[in-house]
Amino acid sequence: MQNSPVQTIACLLICCPDRPGIVAGVSVFFFQLGANILDASQHSTDPREGLFFMRMEIQLDIADKAGLEQSFQEKVATPLAMEWQIHYSDQRKKMAIMVSSYDHCLMELLWRWRSGELAVDIPVVISNHTKLEKECTSLGLPFHYLPVDAGNKAAQEQAAIDLLQQHDIDFTVLARYMQILSPRFVEQYPQRIINIHHSFLPAFAGARPYLNAYTRGVKLIGATAHYVTNELDEGPIIEQDVARVSHKHAVDDLVMLGRDIERQVLTRAVKAHIENRVIVHGNKTIVF
Amino acid sequence: MQNSPVQTIACLLICCPDRPGIVAGVSVFFFQLGANILDASQHSTDPREGLFFMRMEIQLDIADKAGLEQSFQEKVATPLAMEWQIHYSDQRKKMAIMVSSYDHCLMELLWRWRSGELAVDIPVVISNHTKLEKECTSLGLPFHYLPVDAGNKAAQEQAAIDLLQQHDIDFTVLARYMQILSPRFVEQYPQRIINIHHSFLPAFAGARPYLNAYTRGVKLIGATAHYVTNELDEGPIIEQDVARVSHKHAVDDLVMLGRDIERQVLTRAVKAHIENRVIVHGNKTIVF
Amino acid sequence: MQNSPVQTIACLLICCPDRPGIVAGVSVFFFQLGANILDASQHSTDPREGLFFMRMEIQLDIADKAGLEQSFQEKVATPLAMEWQIHYSDQRKKMAIMVSSYDHCLMELLWRWRSGELAVDIPVVISNHTKLEKECTSLGLPFHYLPVDAGNKAAQEQAAIDLLQQHDIDFTVLARYMQILSPRFVEQYPQRIINIHHSFLPAFAGARPYLNAYTRGVKLIGATAHYVTNELDEGPIIEQDVARVSHKHAVDDLVMLGRDIERQVLTRAVKAHIENRVIVHGNKTIVF
Amino acid sequence: MQNSPVQTIACLLICCPDRPGIVAGVSVFFFQLGANILDASQHSTDPREGLFFMRMEIQLDIADKAGLEQSFQEKVATPLAMEWQIHYSDQRKKMAIMVSSYDHCLMELLWRWRSGELAVDIPVVISNHTKLEKECTSLGLPFHYLPVDAGNKAAQEQAAIDLLQQHDIDFTVLARYMQILSPRFVEQYPQRIINIHHSFLPAFAGARPYLNAYTRGVKLIGATAHYVTNELDEGPIIEQDVARVSHKHAVDDLVMLGRDIERQVLTRAVKAHIENRVIVHGNKTIVF
Repeated sequence: MQNSPVQTIACLLICCPDRPGIVAGVSVFFFQLGANILDASQHSTDPREGLFFMRMEIQLDIADKAGLEQSFQEKVATPLAMEWQIHYSDQRKKMAIMVSSYDHCLMELLWRWRSGELAVDIPVVISNHTKLEKECTSLGLPFHYLPVDAGNKAAQEQAAIDLLQQHDIDFTVLARYMQILSPRFVEQYPQRIINIHHSFLPAFAGARPYLNAYTRGVKLIGATAHYVTNELDEGPIIEQDVARVSHKHAVDDLVMLGRDIERQVLTRAVKAHIENRVIVHGNKTIVF
Repeated sequence: MQNSPVQTIACLLICCPDRPGIVAGVSVFFFQLGANILDASQHSTDPREGLFFMRMEIQLDIADKAGLEQSFQEKVATPLAMEWQIHYSDQRKKMAIMVSSYDHCLMELLWRWRSGELAVDIPVVISNHTKLEKECTSLGLPFHYLPVDAGNKAAQEQAAIDLLQQHDIDFTVLARYMQILSPRFVEQYPQRIINIHHSFLPAFAGARPYLNAYTRGVKLIGATAHYVTNELDEGPIIEQDVARVSHKHAVDDLVMLGRDIERQVLTRAVKAHIENRVIVHGNKTIVF
Repeated sequence: MQNSPVQTIACLLICCPDRPGIVAGVSVFFFQLGANILDASQHSTDPREGLFFMRMEIQLDIADKAGLEQSFQEKVATPLAMEWQIHYSDQRKKMAIMVSSYDHCLMELLWRWRSGELAVDIPVVISNHTKLEKECTSLGLPFHYLPVDAGNKAAQEQAAIDLLQQHDIDFTVLARYMQILSPRFVEQYPQRIINIHHSFLPAFAGARPYLNAYTRGVKLIGATAHYVTNELDEGPIIEQDVARVSHKHAVDDLVMLGRDIERQVLTRAVKAHIENRVIVHGNKTIVF
Repeated sequence: MQNSPVQTIACLLICCPDRPGIVAGVSVFFFQLGANILDASQHSTDPREGLFFMRMEIQLDIADKAGLEQSFQEKVATPLAMEWQIHYSDQRKKMAIMVSSYDHCLMELLWRWRSGELAVDIPVVISNHTKLEKECTSLGLPFHYLPVDAGNKAAQEQAAIDLLQQHDIDFTVLARYMQILSPRFVEQYPQRIINIHHSFLPAFAGARPYLNAYTRGVKLIGATAHYVTNELDEGPIIEQDVARVSHKHAVDDLVMLGRDIERQVLTRAVKAHIENRVIVHGNKTIVF
């Protein structure tokens, strides 16, 4: 492989009915192209009549992506009744962030982005408050202030959608954005809007989870990152975590601890999405 | 303290309106008796108008427990409007176990009891199945088989209550006992029946929590130990914990992992109860 | 697949120089036999010049295992310079346990074995003490008492080796066996003796780790399961875990907590070994 | 307590030989001053001949701190042979930060400081690099660039000491400061310099712990926050934590994960120090 140009790494995600020959079919297809399989993970819901899921990282020279994809569709995907998607390492994802005034999730995302852990571009930050403008602009990130009130909600949502489209956004992270998105918004970005729910779902769905956790006297509090659907707090869960608490923690302490869990859970979910590790099936995720 | 007889360790639990002078009042009372405070923990819900909770371990010579308690009531508890209880290290608690046919919680309790971690006597094990009889009798524990069906539930419950009373039981552990106790039973043992709920409450209350967790696609499963009240699954939580799961875990795997969490959470709760570390206030616990 | 006989599941573990075509070669070989790949995991130390490791679970009808293996060697393994092993679900592993007088690791292994989590046979338990005899014989397990003193160590080791050979033992678990095995013993069972080290290696290698941890004032204690080599405490690590401790924990408390970690870590390592999830490379493990 | 001025909260830390009457003596002293004990924690190494440690939060009106302290010394501390210190909530601690070019610990400290979790002033940041200057000055924090080379180490250390003294610094945090402080520096600030060691001490003491952890194949990596002494990496441990790793993690991944543990462990240790929760005894800490 001396003097070869830097090769592209393709990430293939597939879902199809389970049957013998899937791995052989996919791996022979890429072997015949001279590609090397760097990593592969698979999951079967049931090997006899279930579904088969696979994520494969493939290193190859790609002169013609469209040709590759058409060939894969014909030779592999159609015969195996496969749903699939492919992502390329030379096409960096474009991530939008929507945020209100809590800074912890935004700051964590930005720090990890600066440190190179999140390999995305961030062409747009949208907020209904001005409070976090400086945190974004000081890093050269465009900050769009779209305040929302009872009268302008639909219009401001449209303005947000316009921004996402104009910048060709791949996915949006709600980093404690305290407005509920309308079905019209959500439907345009299926499995492409990630929210952090400040609670260990399904417990304490809804507002004020820390107060509810305090009142119930639970010994653990948590947070949940999920894809947004039009069922509030019911979208496919990507990641969750908890922290231990006790009677010593007042509601304020729970909020403080909760911030730490929220920012960790959200960034882990965002990282998994960026690395094409998440397949949604029904209302559940497979996170490879 | 040379040649002194082995001293008793008393464990005092108090709850009273918060105000200056409580610690001074209690500690002077015991200092004047020549006692040594081995350990103390306290908690205030709010120092100005809240409640004060304290657990204190005191080493002292007690010839006359009734006299000590009367004196404490008069000199300390009454002036400070205190609710209190005292336990003595020379009075080992008597624990009953009720179990059906899952063995994991029972086996864990028995192993820890044999290894000296749980300093209790176990005069009674009650089961509505015979499956675990040998596990108990081989350790010399009396095993009472009280099968329950639609027709005899009330009578068998009364037989169980009779056993508990006959053996002067201090508290009962439901180690996966798959019958719901009647209000009549529960009311006789307030804060003295510990249950393990095979779920991270309040999520997935009710039956089949592992199936529910699987269906919802959660990334953590858990278990909850709580005191039994007549609100099903709503009693004060003593301890909780979780384990991380993924799409790789089938429902059976969740059940298997769940067993591990259940037995750990239950034994931690039982140990805290035995060591007089739990104060119930309203529907919450303070676990010192 | 109607009316087919119950099929065997084969588990293939391979290690070879990384290059394109390995997955294709293996998967086509098995596809042509009509087999279905149930699960596959792979790892590359470096895709350009590194090593490739893979674990594959394959469901197939096998009339002739020797023929299958010879064919795989010729068509796949030799061309790819592969080291490999294959295990079959219809050949249950035979596990020996060696134990001294601490019961916690033994009891945990036996409970998980009885509950079906550890799919092995246990034809031999060997101990240099009699204390745990009843725990084994009550479950129908043969218990061999081989006391060791300065004069008979070599002879008793030989007696142990004879037992292992006589029962065709696949691997041995040292469940807190407090004798150091001689090189002669260890060399006969490379990567087939699993030990639990009551410490988070490499910290506190050697005896009395809990005292050392206490003296150093660490805030976490741990345990390590590893394959035994002739470098004491230096064998490939299979699994580790820790528990949080504080100044409140006396040395005795650390021992008690340590027991819990030891039994969890050991059983996880044993389970991974039984399920053929561990590949040793040099002094490290890949645990799929 | 109506219309009273805002009261000071004093935090008392004591260490003395254990004997009856300590809690009584301290609590009566403060009760007679009209103070309210908000929180108290205690620890005995051995109630008969050991040492007694206590942390007490006391709410009181203090017109004359020097008078209070003199009175406490005479009436309580001297009779009980007590070492003690007292801190007041109206005297905010002054924290210096020393940092080189890794930003993760600094950014975490600054974020928590801005969010109100760390109740300190930060009059000085010192660095031997310029890389993180903007991160400090944009928050209004004075950034002092003191580059170190073989020839100027002693002089630059003296410049740092001068800055700390000039600003009356209470304690210094080494937020990945990659220079070893001289004994002369360390001796001036006993138990007042907090370092983060990028390893789970005592394993992998020294440089390159992540490479060492990778080479040894451990399944957990960790970090340790400790007070700096002149025994390198041997000072009293304040806090530690670990993260689970596997063969999938290259050295770079370990470094990335390690950063997350480092910043969490360091900020927890700094918070404990600020809240006067740490007592050092010998080479160990009691963290209340």
